[in-house]
Amino acid sequence: MSKTSPLAPARFPTIKAVAGVELTGRAVGLKKTKGVKDLMIAKLAPGTEIAGVYTRSKCPSAPVTWCRSISRHGKARLIIASSGNANAFTGYDGDAVVEETVAEAARLFRVRKDEVYVAATGVIGEALPHDYISQRLAKLKDALKPNGWAAAAAAIMTTDTFPKAAQRTAEIGGKKVTIAGFAKGSGMIAPDMGTLLSFVFTDAKIPAAVLRQMLRQATDRSFNSITVDSDTSTSDTLLFCATGKGPKHPSVTTPGGALVKDFVRALREVCTDLAHQIVRDGEGATKFITINVAGAEDRDAARRIGLSVANSPLVKTAVAGEDANWGRIVMAVGKAGEKADRDALKISIGGFAVAEKGRRLAGYDETPVAAHMKGDHVVIDIDVGVGGSRATVWTCDLTHGYISINADYRS
Amino acid sequence: MSKTSPLAPARFPTIKAVAGVELTGRAVGLKKTKGVKDLMIAKLAPGTEIAGVYTRSKCPSAPVTWCRSISRHGKARLIIASSGNANAFTGYDGDAVVEETVAEAARLFRVRKDEVYVAATGVIGEALPHDYISQRLAKLKDALKPNGWAAAAAAIMTTDTFPKAAQRTAEIGGKKVTIAGFAKGSGMIAPDMGTLLSFVFTDAKIPAAVLRQMLRQATDRSFNSITVDSDTSTSDTLLFCATGKGPKHPSVTTPGGALVKDFVRALREVCTDLAHQIVRDGEGATKFITINVAGAEDRDAARRIGLSVANSPLVKTAVAGEDANWGRIVMAVGKAGEKADRDALKISIGGFAVAEKGRRLAGYDETPVAAHMKGDHVVIDIDVGVGGSRATVWTCDLTHGYISINADYRS
Repeated sequence: MSKTSPLAPARFPTIKAVAGVELTGRAVGLKKTKGVKDLMIAKLAPGTEIAGVYTRSKCPSAPVTWCRSISRHGKARLIIASSGNANAFTGYDGDAVVEETVAEAARLFRVRKDEVYVAATGVIGEALPHDYISQRLAKLKDALKPNGWAAAAAAIMTTDTFPKAAQRTAEIGGKKVTIAGFAKGSGMIAPDMGTLLSFVFTDAKIPAAVLRQMLRQATDRSFNSITVDSDTSTSDTLLFCATGKGPKHPSVTTPGGALVKDFVRALREVCTDLAHQIVRDGEGATKFITINVAGAEDRDAARRIGLSVANSPLVKTAVAGEDANWGRIVMAVGKAGEKADRDALKISIGGFAVAEKGRRLAGYDETPVAAHMKGDHVVIDIDVGVGGSRATVWTCDLTHGYISINADYRS
Repeated sequence: MSKTSPLAPARFPTIKAVAGVELTGRAVGLKKTKGVKDLMIAKLAPGTEIAGVYTRSKCPSAPVTWCRSISRHGKARLIIASSGNANAFTGYDGDAVVEETVAEAARLFRVRKDEVYVAATGVIGEALPHDYISQRLAKLKDALKPNGWAAAAAAIMTTDTFPKAAQRTAEIGGKKVTIAGFAKGSGMIAPDMGTLLSFVFTDAKIPAAVLRQMLRQATDRSFNSITVDSDTSTSDTLLFCATGKGPKHPSVTTPGGALVKDFVRALREVCTDLAHQIVRDGEGATKFITINVAGAEDRDAARRIGLSVANSPLVKTAVAGEDANWGRIVMAVGKAGEKADRDALKISIGGFAVAEKGRRLAGYDETPVAAHMKGDHVVIDIDVGVGGSRATVWTCDLTHGYISINADYRS
């Protein structure tokens, strides 16, 4: 395993139990290194509602295809996630492995098949023996516990250099509920290594249809607003489960409004926290980059401009080189294809104005900007000057470390 | 300047005169290194027709804005291209510099202003003294000659490690005409360094409206089918001029049909040759990659899938590492967003089948594929299994050299 990212948090956060959730992670030999955790199970109380967001890849993995097929039902009793083998691009055999895992889990835990969600990350195109996972589920059954977060988060890691988890509390109608989740990913990202998986749980009682809308909104401003290398996995999976086993609160029937305002805020914070941890574990990352886009035609345009800057290899290498190269930022804004006004464009780096009115600032002093570039969090503000919408996107720099991880690993 | 790319052709090709074209390149001090050529002029015979293709950037440079404004006229007498300063993101002052250059050129060469095309590449956001270029035009006027290709090609280079030119002949109605051009670019590419500029000339007599359609088609299958780093410059400019000073041939009135079939072929060859040279000079490139996509819904879908693979940092680093990582190819096909059939997808590398029917080939032997990956031209064939359309895209690998050029240059 690589050295822990220099941008990693100091320690794994304390995650308290979420009523209705028991989980664990164990080593079952899917990963080559002996004793490294690679199978995770989360058991959910009866009545748990679920919503999912999946990769947009046109070549999704067998587990993603399965989860999509049962998602309309909106109920979940189990999540089974494995690392080491993605079960992606494994043809009909891959589908069969998923079906067998689901059937055995349903039998073992006495739940319905369409309430068993599966996810996998790891090597692509490598077939798994049919019964490999299904035969090992029983081993984990007795280890399930309300505080198994650290083991669960570790069991879904691949090239991640640290386990990722986050928790927030919120009030619904005066009652305190909790949201906790964990994630893996170290790019947006490699199909054989860096898939994004995230599982988020709450003890609030919320119907699947409402969860879905809340999750989509939260995802837009968190996981869908980060990028490491612009690549998208065949296996990206984000699941959000509501057990309804927390304190009884007024009935939630819509994703908006005063009743759920604080809950929606907390969900967005959990997702954003996890998304930031993924960027901080970006392959080869040495700097965390925040890109704030304002003055865009609409929010989507703002986000697309932000992602165009965040995905530009030239911007990312400039940040790695601690070079306040705003010319490359102009280029990346221009190539986004969204409306922008060359003669109104404003760019600041680290809060210091660099360019405005379509040209470098008169009397521009590079000194404070250069000092900001030396830090490990670089902030770029862009005003494209055509409207009132804004968005924020996060990424990391592109370094020799990325090349070493992705090009040199066989040599 | 960096060491010449290992993928460079052995020598600058012999380019014969194109009747009606005189050109030259000189050092006038725009580039920091003394004596390095940085200003190019091509003088065109009266009656020359012109068509252009420009960057789609929403923040184009002042020269691009100028060329677009005069393009409807379709006539050209001069092309002036400078390197060292892109005159991009220089606000209204940048427009004024272009206007002054054009006015002085029109006066000096006794031509119409709307027949003077300008292009620039180099540092972005750096203002040029108003009269810098205009005062130096006279110096070049007397140096113009029919065989000035090498000097002209050198004068538009920036981070390019070799000058790029190509020539083909064709028959129109039994008469031999010629097409020659030169280009610069070393990525798709950096706004402050690597802009794509290309100027192509023929002695055939073809009206601008027809030239435009021919150029668009040729560009689609050449310059628009290459990528180095997915970045798009503020200044990309491709001009195609027909002087009509070659042997008299039957009148050309449409871009298709038997009369121009051979001409269209030759134009595509010149553009493809130049585009390949740009890829071969890709920053840090050590391998040239051809990606053939077949079985797509339509040609655009095929090209988008090809570009998705070509732009994937994970595919490019895998090639750099000589790793036949077809899982990353599947990922990149999937993220293109175009129709693909997981269970029909076929992938070959170097002509050896690697995966088919949505999974790794039964009895796959990596040996010949691994040997192919060690060469400096890697060929990837992808059949997405949903239709009958195909496209080819070219790119280079992503190496430590790219990071060094783009991140380390200030340190």
